[in-house]
Amino acid sequence: MENGNKEIYTENKIEGRNAVMETLRSGRSVDKIYVLMGSHDGPIQSIVREAKKHDTIISFVSKERLNQMSETGNHQGVIAMAASYEYATVEGILKIAEDKGEPPFIILLDGIEDPHNLGAILRTANLAGAHGVIIPKHRAVGLTATVAKTSAGAINYTPVAKVTNLGAAIDQLKKEGLWFVCADMGGTKMYDLDLKGPIGLVVGNEGGGVSRLVREKCDFIASIPMKGDIDSLNASVAAGVLAYEIVRQRG
Amino acid sequence: MENGNKEIYTENKIEGRNAVMETLRSGRSVDKIYVLMGSHDGPIQSIVREAKKHDTIISFVSKERLNQMSETGNHQGVIAMAASYEYATVEGILKIAEDKGEPPFIILLDGIEDPHNLGAILRTANLAGAHGVIIPKHRAVGLTATVAKTSAGAINYTPVAKVTNLGAAIDQLKKEGLWFVCADMGGTKMYDLDLKGPIGLVVGNEGGGVSRLVREKCDFIASIPMKGDIDSLNASVAAGVLAYEIVRQRG
Repeated sequence: MENGNKEIYTENKIEGRNAVMETLRSGRSVDKIYVLMGSHDGPIQSIVREAKKHDTIISFVSKERLNQMSETGNHQGVIAMAASYEYATVEGILKIAEDKGEPPFIILLDGIEDPHNLGAILRTANLAGAHGVIIPKHRAVGLTATVAKTSAGAINYTPVAKVTNLGAAIDQLKKEGLWFVCADMGGTKMYDLDLKGPIGLVVGNEGGGVSRLVREKCDFIASIPMKGDIDSLNASVAAGVLAYEIVRQRG
Repeated sequence: MENGNKEIYTENKIEGRNAVMETLRSGRSVDKIYVLMGSHDGPIQSIVREAKKHDTIISFVSKERLNQMSETGNHQGVIAMAASYEYATVEGILKIAEDKGEPPFIILLDGIEDPHNLGAILRTANLAGAHGVIIPKHRAVGLTATVAKTSAGAINYTPVAKVTNLGAAIDQLKKEGLWFVCADMGGTKMYDLDLKGPIGLVVGNEGGGVSRLVREKCDFIASIPMKGDIDSLNASVAAGVLAYEIVRQRG
C-alpha cells in the first residue's frame, strides 16, 4: 500500500463463520469482531484464534446484541467490522519519503475520536506534504465512511498506518532518524523550535491532549501561542497550525 | 454587548402576548415570530408592528400549528423564537480593539454553513487574539446550540456580529483603516504578505470559497502553500492556519 489507502471494499459488516474466517485470512483490515459470549463451538474458536493472530479486537456479546447488529439475520454467532479502507504500514510511509528524496514528515494522532477531525487532519496532511499519518488501534476512530467523506479525497492519497502501540512506533521511527514534537501547553513557542529535518508531529486527543507516555517520548513540546480565554484549539485546527509551521520552516 | 455574546436566556420559545411584546421591546435577538393567521386583535397587531420595527421575520400560521408548537398551552395567538446568544455589533468589536490599544483583527466568514466549523473558528478567533467575528445574516449558520457546544466556551468571550451585507461591512471597516485579506487559490503565498496592522481576514464557504463580490473588495489574496493532491483544507483549518500566520507576523 505504498501509494495510499485504496477503497477496495464497500461492504463493511461481514456476517457468518465462513465469511468472517475468509476475511480474516485474506489479510483485509478488520477493526473488530463481535463473537457470541460463552460459545464453545469449534469454528467460532478457530475464528477467535485467527483474529488474535492478526491482533484484531474481539468483543464478546450477547445473542440479542448480535441479532440487533445483523443485517442478514444469519450471523451464526460472529460478525466482523472491516475497515472501509486498507491501512498502509509505517515502512510504506517511510518508503514514500525516501522515493521523493525528502526528509520524512509524519503526523501521529494520539487518540483522535471524532471522524470529522480525522478527515480534516487527512486533508491537512495531504496538503502540507506529510508522507503519512499514524493512528493507534485502540480508543481512536479508524478509516470509516465518515472519515473518508470528510477527508475530501485525501484518504485516497495520504497513507494511514494503524499501530498497536504509538510509543513503540515512535521508538522505531527514532531509529530511522526522526525527531518528535508534540503539541501541548507549557512547551516552547513553536516559532522558536527548529522543526526542519525528519520529523514526527504528535497531536493529542480532543479532550485529554497527548498522553503522558507518548509525551515523554517526544524530543520537543511545541506550544501554539494562546492569547484568549479558553483552553485549547479544536484538535484538527491545532494539527493544521503546527503542520503549517513545519511547512513554513521547511520552505 | 462589548465583551462578548452572553448566554442570558436558556429558554428560546416565548409564548403569550405580554411575554413576546416584552421580549421584542427589550431588544433581544428574535429570529422569528409565529402569529395567528387572520387575527384582528389589537395587542397582536401591536406585536406585529413592533416585530417589523426590529426587522424580525413574521410567519402567520393556523391555530392548530400554534397549539402544536406551544409548550405552555397558553400562547394567546403568538409565539416568538429567540436566538440562543445575543449578537454583538461591528462597532462593539472595534471598541474592544480600541480599549485594548491593539490594531483591530477581525475574522469575517463568507457563508460558513457547518456549525462545527463555526464553533472551531470561534475557538481559533478567541485564542489567536481576534477582536471579533462577523457573519452574514443569510445563507450561513448563526449562534446555535451546536455552535455554542463546539466553540468550547469561546462563544462567551469572542463577540460575533451578524450583518445583512458582508461587502458593506468591509466598506465600513475600510473607512476605519482596516486592510482585508482573503484566503483563496492563486493568491500570494501567505508568508510573503505583510499581515501586520489593522486587518480583516475573510474565510470562504466550505464548498464555494469566497464569493466574487467579497473577493473583489479584498486588498490581498493570500494562498496557503499546497503540496498535495486535493483541492482545499477544511474551512476551519484554513482559517486557523491564516489566523496564526497573522499572529506570527504580529508577534
